Amino acid sequence: MIDLPILSGVTAAVATPLTADRDIDVPRWAHHCRWLLANGCDGLAVFGTTGEANSFTASERMAALENLIAAGVPAERLVPGTGVCALPEAVALSRQAVDLGCAGCLVLPPFYYKGVPDDGLFAAFAGIVESIADPRLRMYLYHFPQMSGVPVPVPVAARLAEAFPGIVVGIKDSSGDLHNMKELVREIPGFAVLAGSDELLLPVLDAGGAGCITAVANIAAHMAREVHDLWRGGDRAGARTRQESLSHVRRVVTRFPALPAVKACIARQLDDPRWRAVRPPLMALDDARRDDLFRQLDDLGFRPPEGS
Amino acid sequence: MIDLPILSGVTAAVATPLTADRDIDVPRWAHHCRWLLANGCDGLAVFGTTGEANSFTASERMAALENLIAAGVPAERLVPGTGVCALPEAVALSRQAVDLGCAGCLVLPPFYYKGVPDDGLFAAFAGIVESIADPRLRMYLYHFPQMSGVPVPVPVAARLAEAFPGIVVGIKDSSGDLHNMKELVREIPGFAVLAGSDELLLPVLDAGGAGCITAVANIAAHMAREVHDLWRGGDRAGARTRQESLSHVRRVVTRFPALPAVKACIARQLDDPRWRAVRPPLMALDDARRDDLFRQLDDLGFRPPEGS
Repeated sequence: MIDLPILSGVTAAVATPLTADRDIDVPRWAHHCRWLLANGCDGLAVFGTTGEANSFTASERMAALENLIAAGVPAERLVPGTGVCALPEAVALSRQAVDLGCAGCLVLPPFYYKGVPDDGLFAAFAGIVESIADPRLRMYLYHFPQMSGVPVPVPVAARLAEAFPGIVVGIKDSSGDLHNMKELVREIPGFAVLAGSDELLLPVLDAGGAGCITAVANIAAHMAREVHDLWRGGDRAGARTRQESLSHVRRVVTRFPALPAVKACIARQLDDPRWRAVRPPLMALDDARRDDLFRQLDDLGFRPPEGS
Repeated sequence: MIDLPILSGVTAAVATPLTADRDIDVPRWAHHCRWLLANGCDGLAVFGTTGEANSFTASERMAALENLIAAGVPAERLVPGTGVCALPEAVALSRQAVDLGCAGCLVLPPFYYKGVPDDGLFAAFAGIVESIADPRLRMYLYHFPQMSGVPVPVPVAARLAEAFPGIVVGIKDSSGDLHNMKELVREIPGFAVLAGSDELLLPVLDAGGAGCITAVANIAAHMAREVHDLWRGGDRAGARTRQESLSHVRRVVTRFPALPAVKACIARQLDDPRWRAVRPPLMALDDARRDDLFRQLDDLGFRPPEGS
């Protein structure tokens, strides 16, 4: 087994900017990634849900990831999403991430068929690990039942962690269910449990989790950073105060369609309207909703860190 | 506009056989397609849900479709599924189907993001039509909210049919909701409404629908054929009796995971256990459940047509 650091702390579910033709805009993406690393992020989960991964083909994803790293974003900070419906494609995406030296892969279950048996789910993930057959692989399962429609039950995660120790090393839990995260921590010793919601950063740290991977970190990683560092330094009261501020920001953003809302905020921050674009079936916020979002964030006194 | 026949009558949602390596087994697939055409099917909806479309990569699907036609299955009977999450991939799959002379494309909405706005859904389908820009395209929308998690609302279907007359020509409605099918018939003049359930074949024909596209037609197309032909010939009482028998078969099959159950039945019919295989996350029925399925079908007196 190769000793690689396991994801912890604050990771952004990085949004993906688009060109005028709605292709992936690698220069803007690389700029945003560098800014996130300079402003609170430990890791960068590109091509997750917020990154609109499933709106891009495998070849678009592979070309863009290679170009992102070529543009200077350090591979060892990147945890690309690589889980798709067709297993050979999930294998190809994951293998590329390993070959490029990425910190890990964030893997959705195959998400078209609903109500699949646990044995089938295990076989799907195990098939990816076995096809790659590389000790450098670090797989993080991705549990987001509200979006994927296919949960990753705790017993399946436990079985995978046991079958592939040091390879299947963690999970992003976007269910919003702290009980599930606590059960993961309890049932799977050493497993990195990462909350998918900023509101649960402090609770998951308290419960023995490793940190968070969130959409709101695209604009507020500095706040999550402070929560994490205060908590790590033993100042739980300070962490709690900061967590409350962060939770307010998240609650505002999630009153809107979250992906377009995050992109609208980045566009404002950079004064770069191009950032608002999404691929269908998503739609950018119209101006009225965008202004409403900004007004609500302003009312909170929310400010991005300087130098964005 | 090019005058092409619109899908009607009985279409099978064709199952996809796998080799020992779980690749698509084109010779077995072509054999099954030919048998279906000889035993009651007007059309062949390959790479739908039952065809495990989303378990295969775009390149696997494109190579197999080309080879299926090269093996002698007439393209003008084929309606491949071409709707996937990434729109450029849906465009590539649909364009290939048009170029190969297929009767149409059955198009799922991009199905990862849930709760998307109607405008976004419209933009996704419209983007495919506009990218292909070929008068030979015949698009059938695919409404299967229980599986895809993303409904195709009647107003979106109506708007597409109006925007692209003669191109967006019909819908497969697998919701099981006859009211929705009636509304589609009522709201969209000339639209081919195809029931996704064998149990609704006669009701949808009564309501002005065009026919059905079903999984159970893989083993019982002859029964659906009789329902359709009796109804078309004015013998509604005869059609109703036959519909009851067909509905019994469907109810048995759907007591089990439907895709593995259909494959188990084909395997029995052909005395070819290879047909049982599925790709993860699906799992083949274990022997006990398979035997239970067969016993229940035997109790109904269900028999495939001869010469299978």
